[in-house]
Amino acid sequence: MIIVMRPKATQQDVEIVTKKIVEAGLQVHLSQGESRTIIGVIGDKKLIAKLPTDVFPGVEKSVSVTESYKLVSREFKQEDSIIDINGTLIGGKHLGIMAGPCAVESMEQLLEAAQVVKAAGAQFLRGGAYKPRTSPYAFQGLEEKGLEMLAEAREKTGLKIVTEVVDSASVDTVSQFADILQIGARNMQNFNLLKTVGRTDKAVLLKRGLSATISEWLNAAEYVMSEGNYNVILCERGIRTFETYTRNTLDLGAVAAVKTLSHLPVIVDPSHGTGLWKMVRPMARAAIAAGADGLMIEVHPNPAEALCDGNQSLTPENFHLLMNEIGGISELMGKQLK
Amino acid sequence: MIIVMRPKATQQDVEIVTKKIVEAGLQVHLSQGESRTIIGVIGDKKLIAKLPTDVFPGVEKSVSVTESYKLVSREFKQEDSIIDINGTLIGGKHLGIMAGPCAVESMEQLLEAAQVVKAAGAQFLRGGAYKPRTSPYAFQGLEEKGLEMLAEAREKTGLKIVTEVVDSASVDTVSQFADILQIGARNMQNFNLLKTVGRTDKAVLLKRGLSATISEWLNAAEYVMSEGNYNVILCERGIRTFETYTRNTLDLGAVAAVKTLSHLPVIVDPSHGTGLWKMVRPMARAAIAAGADGLMIEVHPNPAEALCDGNQSLTPENFHLLMNEIGGISELMGKQLK
Amino acid sequence: MIIVMRPKATQQDVEIVTKKIVEAGLQVHLSQGESRTIIGVIGDKKLIAKLPTDVFPGVEKSVSVTESYKLVSREFKQEDSIIDINGTLIGGKHLGIMAGPCAVESMEQLLEAAQVVKAAGAQFLRGGAYKPRTSPYAFQGLEEKGLEMLAEAREKTGLKIVTEVVDSASVDTVSQFADILQIGARNMQNFNLLKTVGRTDKAVLLKRGLSATISEWLNAAEYVMSEGNYNVILCERGIRTFETYTRNTLDLGAVAAVKTLSHLPVIVDPSHGTGLWKMVRPMARAAIAAGADGLMIEVHPNPAEALCDGNQSLTPENFHLLMNEIGGISELMGKQLK
Amino acid sequence: MIIVMRPKATQQDVEIVTKKIVEAGLQVHLSQGESRTIIGVIGDKKLIAKLPTDVFPGVEKSVSVTESYKLVSREFKQEDSIIDINGTLIGGKHLGIMAGPCAVESMEQLLEAAQVVKAAGAQFLRGGAYKPRTSPYAFQGLEEKGLEMLAEAREKTGLKIVTEVVDSASVDTVSQFADILQIGARNMQNFNLLKTVGRTDKAVLLKRGLSATISEWLNAAEYVMSEGNYNVILCERGIRTFETYTRNTLDLGAVAAVKTLSHLPVIVDPSHGTGLWKMVRPMARAAIAAGADGLMIEVHPNPAEALCDGNQSLTPENFHLLMNEIGGISELMGKQLK
Repeated sequence: MIIVMRPKATQQDVEIVTKKIVEAGLQVHLSQGESRTIIGVIGDKKLIAKLPTDVFPGVEKSVSVTESYKLVSREFKQEDSIIDINGTLIGGKHLGIMAGPCAVESMEQLLEAAQVVKAAGAQFLRGGAYKPRTSPYAFQGLEEKGLEMLAEAREKTGLKIVTEVVDSASVDTVSQFADILQIGARNMQNFNLLKTVGRTDKAVLLKRGLSATISEWLNAAEYVMSEGNYNVILCERGIRTFETYTRNTLDLGAVAAVKTLSHLPVIVDPSHGTGLWKMVRPMARAAIAAGADGLMIEVHPNPAEALCDGNQSLTPENFHLLMNEIGGISELMGKQLK
Repeated sequence: MIIVMRPKATQQDVEIVTKKIVEAGLQVHLSQGESRTIIGVIGDKKLIAKLPTDVFPGVEKSVSVTESYKLVSREFKQEDSIIDINGTLIGGKHLGIMAGPCAVESMEQLLEAAQVVKAAGAQFLRGGAYKPRTSPYAFQGLEEKGLEMLAEAREKTGLKIVTEVVDSASVDTVSQFADILQIGARNMQNFNLLKTVGRTDKAVLLKRGLSATISEWLNAAEYVMSEGNYNVILCERGIRTFETYTRNTLDLGAVAAVKTLSHLPVIVDPSHGTGLWKMVRPMARAAIAAGADGLMIEVHPNPAEALCDGNQSLTPENFHLLMNEIGGISELMGKQLK
Repeated sequence: MIIVMRPKATQQDVEIVTKKIVEAGLQVHLSQGESRTIIGVIGDKKLIAKLPTDVFPGVEKSVSVTESYKLVSREFKQEDSIIDINGTLIGGKHLGIMAGPCAVESMEQLLEAAQVVKAAGAQFLRGGAYKPRTSPYAFQGLEEKGLEMLAEAREKTGLKIVTEVVDSASVDTVSQFADILQIGARNMQNFNLLKTVGRTDKAVLLKRGLSATISEWLNAAEYVMSEGNYNVILCERGIRTFETYTRNTLDLGAVAAVKTLSHLPVIVDPSHGTGLWKMVRPMARAAIAAGADGLMIEVHPNPAEALCDGNQSLTPENFHLLMNEIGGISELMGKQLK
Repeated sequence: MIIVMRPKATQQDVEIVTKKIVEAGLQVHLSQGESRTIIGVIGDKKLIAKLPTDVFPGVEKSVSVTESYKLVSREFKQEDSIIDINGTLIGGKHLGIMAGPCAVESMEQLLEAAQVVKAAGAQFLRGGAYKPRTSPYAFQGLEEKGLEMLAEAREKTGLKIVTEVVDSASVDTVSQFADILQIGARNMQNFNLLKTVGRTDKAVLLKRGLSATISEWLNAAEYVMSEGNYNVILCERGIRTFETYTRNTLDLGAVAAVKTLSHLPVIVDPSHGTGLWKMVRPMARAAIAAGADGLMIEVHPNPAEALCDGNQSLTPENFHLLMNEIGGISELMGKQLK
């Protein structure tokens, strides 16, 4: 951390600040500039994070120079992490495609969707059994019944299951049915939930919060990993900005950024990221070209009758087109769909 | 809901859309314009919310014209709600001032803070026992031990206690100690938690999420109220914007907006809203002048040694100054502190 | 436009509003719903735009249902516009690649950059002669001298020139040297400048403003076209969001959106869009995969010595790599570089 | 500036960076930490601003520690600036109230508005003669004819005139009529315009750009001052955020921030800041309580017939109420209206 003193800070101010830092078990490096003193603070990140620097006398501001996460960082692990989900790989050269309806509505709907996405080449079936909704009056999901349907669809198609867990109390239940536990955007900083899934042996798909910085997102992954579960897959799904034409602003730059900062795989959800089915195919292509390790796509046998998010769901035909397009680009990127 | 058809939509498109709406149990009003048809959809809000309008043929876009919340709205209840927290009132003419440290650190620190804020005129002691933190390595709170200290401080000072509950699993425990259950910004859309506190008889302080629209915030309050608990106090604490000088952008316009849209009391937290103690007093004054029903302020006997958020905590002296300034403005606003 | 009346609006309110609308030369369609009346306003867009609806009695809110731009819209022209810049085409199947230094610094630097980008396949040389800078003390460009160097580089390499014009007073001068007049992000709503370039016969590259919605951006293009100049190329260059890791958030969804809403070509500037040279190649690939009609890339013979934006400039080697990667993706997209 | 080296940066990397800095005429302070080296760069701000640090070898990131503006800063001038506009003062203890219609529409409308605002206590008449509008088809103002009407209204009422100048070419013309030259939000970074008004002797009202940081806003003021014109008044008028209920998000925290960072007076425009006339009074009160030096308010004799922004204009009655409320708060703040 760098502490920038005011131009008028006295020698005594500098001494008090220095003393506080040393008392906290940290080291100090002083730089006496032309017009002001700059104090470098060196030592344990956790101790540094606790310093209330801006209330020390004579301080103008303090600037953090290092991130507080460790296990997720490229410094901790140089090579790409490859996550093995019961035999299917994501990361490195392995693209993972997750597709299916927003919500599980019925066995028929789910099976039809599952067969469609499998035929087109997806390895994972997505489908919400617990649905966090803005309004208490909207459809909230079939809950445990939905989980059972997902398990049945897995049995019939061989697809792996990814589904959302919304509360630490239901982690056990969902873990009995899912191959990947999804943490939704609204729960990205539900720290109890992060710790709870961190104590399971399930892969965790961690969606970026609507207004989470890349740093906060990686810190959320650190919560999971710090409990011992290293099987974390990140998922960019759009951030909230001033633009209203799209539901969210899909931040593909975050994919490139995460690839630099972390070894974890990162996939992209262009369905939520745009909210408009017409934009899903171009954004899916762009995601793979940007270096994403996979996609999460909403596909519904009949979007016009979906109970949730029909406006952003692809028809089976459009999902096939998408998979064909992705094929060409992933080859150029040296990735494989398997 | 209004459905705007494309200029080139056919008569058949309009008929299909109309049919879908009627099948969903809703009514239709057609407006045949010069260049396009506009379809008004009338009926039960919940049914309207489920229509996947944008995938109907010939549709350009759909526009929601009414909010999905009911119980929180001014239409539901005209007069201001006044929340009675074990004898202390917030709302209407009654200002509620909540103050204290970010986190409970020790009995001494807490008691000192409690005595300071009581002497200055606050009616509520704030203090976190469970602390949601961006990094898993930061101080996470004293948990149940912290709750016990809060209860002891209440006994010694008579102040009511407001403290955060971070998970539905701990609602029972926190309820045994707190007078007001605080829902933090990161949990504003933790719907299980909202429903759980909605089934208690405790007053709930609902902080606005970092990137929550006013509509989403009021829908979150609707989650609590729809479970039967009408004792909800809203708290504006800053939203996330591009500005980096302040920690967040305090949206005092939201106070005025909520006063129009809802009967619920709304207070302001300028400590988190700005992140800079020097800005707390001006923003506290502005909040009251904007019509807020109270304040939540971080006060620490010794900010330079706080374990959390020292940079935004007021010293006892500054809190006294703040309370004096607030006194004059609240009188002009026809409000009383007591 | 749709006017939503309050539930408690009286019959008289509705009549007053109706009268105001008719007096303004517009037509009215009434929808009497269960709980409220909705008034559709039909007629000339320009007249509708002027209605101060929210101050009419009994009005809850009004919602615009159509965009105010015409000439830029797909409704006005179905097929993609192809812009001919003195023999080089952009739009439709034709990709345009513009590359070069942020600022013209010297004849040597410029020529070296020009030769590098030409060899790699670019058709346009970019380079700023007038540089809008946040601080008055930063390097402001070589001005007319820079323009002369650009013209000389064109003569020596055959590359077309794209350069920024910052003020309506200098449009004439810049037009004497440039093939494409660039309107920078900060000037996207400098309406006098837009009208002035709209009266020239030069192609115009219109960068999206930092916080401009897609609708505002297209309206800015409408300013140029409404003066008679239809040769407009749009350029997405990143929007301002809460994220601070990247300089801006490159909004590739805007590319897909513009392709739906407008017939104009749209290119992408990943150099400004990210601010980090390491992210330029992945974002350039993603842009082409999303359907962009070209790229604008900062290339500097020696980024470490650039007078401006060195941090986001590619070395010649990296630009070559980028062009190779783009080649494969543009082929998949059915586009050609020529 | 602080340069943070990567943990794996070599001794040679550090030497190269050091050499580059010294060659640029700057000084270096090295801090050798446990895991990485931090390099402090000291010297002329202008030279520092030009360093392309992130492309130097081994550099992880660089952090600016000082602002590039000088003349606007509190360090340059400790006491509040008081601007004298032909005998009327703004700044220090002097509140300035500017009110009037969005656009000058006719002599009758303008005179009626002028008399209303004068009677209520305003010292300045606002009114746009040149109107920057999102769509080229919206009303663009009466231009020079509007300026003449403003001058006539001044003669008849004694009010000073504040009106917008949209282009450097019209600065001379507007200066012949106006007492204060207003720079609109969209032109905040129209640097030619800033320099041109900086060479006049007129007071300049500089509105904050829609997505301008506080730092960029102060740098824009520096552009004006660096040309010799120190009579700058800042105006907060709302920033663009994700919230859509209000037209913009009024950032009153910026008022408190500017008061710390700069000696310049800052006023607030709650009409544009909220876009809703019902929110103007609460936000005007809040602005004064936050420490603003004045207000800019849209008042129209008959908002329902305004050619522009009727939805956010106050009626004469509401403006009177506002002025009464402001009176009480400004007294508490030790300010005077005169």
